Amino acid sequence: MTFEVTILGAGSATPTLSSHASAQAVQVGSDYYLIDCGEGTQYRLLDQKIRPSRLKGIFITHLHGDHYFGLFGLLTSLSLGSRTEDLLLFGPKGLSEILTEVFRQSDTRLSYYLDFQEIDAGNPGLIYDAPSFSVSTLPLRHRIPCTGFLFREKIGERNLIKEKLSPDMSHEALRTLKSGKDVSGEAGGILYSYEEFTTPPPPPRTYAYCSDTIFRPELVPYLKDVDCLYHEATFREDELARANKTHHSTAGQAATLAKEAGVGKLLIGHLSSRYAEVGPSLDEARSIFPDTYLAEEGTTYSV
Amino acid sequence: MTFEVTILGAGSATPTLSSHASAQAVQVGSDYYLIDCGEGTQYRLLDQKIRPSRLKGIFITHLHGDHYFGLFGLLTSLSLGSRTEDLLLFGPKGLSEILTEVFRQSDTRLSYYLDFQEIDAGNPGLIYDAPSFSVSTLPLRHRIPCTGFLFREKIGERNLIKEKLSPDMSHEALRTLKSGKDVSGEAGGILYSYEEFTTPPPPPRTYAYCSDTIFRPELVPYLKDVDCLYHEATFREDELARANKTHHSTAGQAATLAKEAGVGKLLIGHLSSRYAEVGPSLDEARSIFPDTYLAEEGTTYSV
Repeated sequence: MTFEVTILGAGSATPTLSSHASAQAVQVGSDYYLIDCGEGTQYRLLDQKIRPSRLKGIFITHLHGDHYFGLFGLLTSLSLGSRTEDLLLFGPKGLSEILTEVFRQSDTRLSYYLDFQEIDAGNPGLIYDAPSFSVSTLPLRHRIPCTGFLFREKIGERNLIKEKLSPDMSHEALRTLKSGKDVSGEAGGILYSYEEFTTPPPPPRTYAYCSDTIFRPELVPYLKDVDCLYHEATFREDELARANKTHHSTAGQAATLAKEAGVGKLLIGHLSSRYAEVGPSLDEARSIFPDTYLAEEGTTYSV
Repeated sequence: MTFEVTILGAGSATPTLSSHASAQAVQVGSDYYLIDCGEGTQYRLLDQKIRPSRLKGIFITHLHGDHYFGLFGLLTSLSLGSRTEDLLLFGPKGLSEILTEVFRQSDTRLSYYLDFQEIDAGNPGLIYDAPSFSVSTLPLRHRIPCTGFLFREKIGERNLIKEKLSPDMSHEALRTLKSGKDVSGEAGGILYSYEEFTTPPPPPRTYAYCSDTIFRPELVPYLKDVDCLYHEATFREDELARANKTHHSTAGQAATLAKEAGVGKLLIGHLSSRYAEVGPSLDEARSIFPDTYLAEEGTTYSV
């Protein structure tokens, strides 16, 4: 199953011409889910040729503008495009009131049902349970209520060992073997053993998104062994005091978390616009956790 | 005095990668005023190198998203940039409630005073009176309350005829002549006549902005002899029924208004994204009013 993330925007709050506000498109199978939706996100989706009909849900971390001011335009444009399919929207308390006010004042009735589900930032846990994956919240700590998200693939079917299969085996028998069950013969007893004809499914993959947050070692158990972690790295160690004051993290702190949680790889973003060069942030993180990469806008990373 | 308008966005409601949502920067002297503020306007200002400190006021025509969804980001970024100078904001009823909700939910306190003045769409007239120009509203008619804006320069000082001046004339005397008054001699009587030493000031210039609106011949008296008229031209004559239904105008209707009002030149914009080529819209308008130009994004037009 396809499971990857495309960085639409990885800039921090101060607008620049070289970066975009926070937004990521997570592809699971053939569906897309947005995490955050900074100003201009609808144009990034156009640019990435991600069709609106494939967008199933949106997850908003918090109500600072650089993480959701693109939501108004995107939701409106989906309606102008005559969308009829429900759209899931997970976001913090208050978002519903804002959207209601915006659409009420413009006399807008969306062409689709916006299924808003309020996130309880104080109570992290499962918020979305789809057939092939689930999403849980991560307890970030920022100046206002803020949650990260953990996308976790479900255990898939076992893999058939093609060399061992015979043409006699029915489709139903193959489905049974893939589901991890033996196939019984007509007279009873095991006709085909799943252990003989299949190998275990690949381990389920996990993607975690953490922006914006002060350094939180408490996140380690939540992030244990995730395959890919995106973590903000607004500042560097020489601006640690500022990071603490503004409730952001340094590149070194993001890497420390990645190391302690034993993640597969770390993507860093949300770098302050004060840094003309991104290299030193990457160096700082890699000195602690070598498998660190810059979250580059327009790039797709497999999970 | 500089009096010109830079087109920041002239697209219609459907987002495309080749146009931006409605926004214009009107420069009067050394100050800038925004008309409309579609999504991404703050990036257009960066792109045009218009410094935030030179932005004195914002005028919003109506609460359809493509005309104001960039306001949230711009107002937030001005605060992040530690602006302290007051900012004028003229907009329709309801805008204040929306902004209050957005900033309340993000616990944002702007670093500057946002001087919001609600426009009464049903009562067109003077809304802003600055030393060198004024702004009045124009009664547009759209699906929701909507006003256009008329920027009118004030009559300036008379021009001194340099060849006739002598070194004996004091600064005070020159100022008196420029203000259109004679200078008296010490013994009474006219020492210098303003009619002899000055020529009349240039006639005050006017710029009118009309988007979005159904064709309104009632606008003609308001637009009489304006130097430059921007008028929306969402559709063409072959889509007249759709224009009427959606309360928009055709290129031909924009030109008819320009012709009947006897304006200096017409800029058309807000063309529907259904039109891959803009030429036919321009042709349609020019067949009625030859001095028609396409409002090109990134271009500055003198008024």
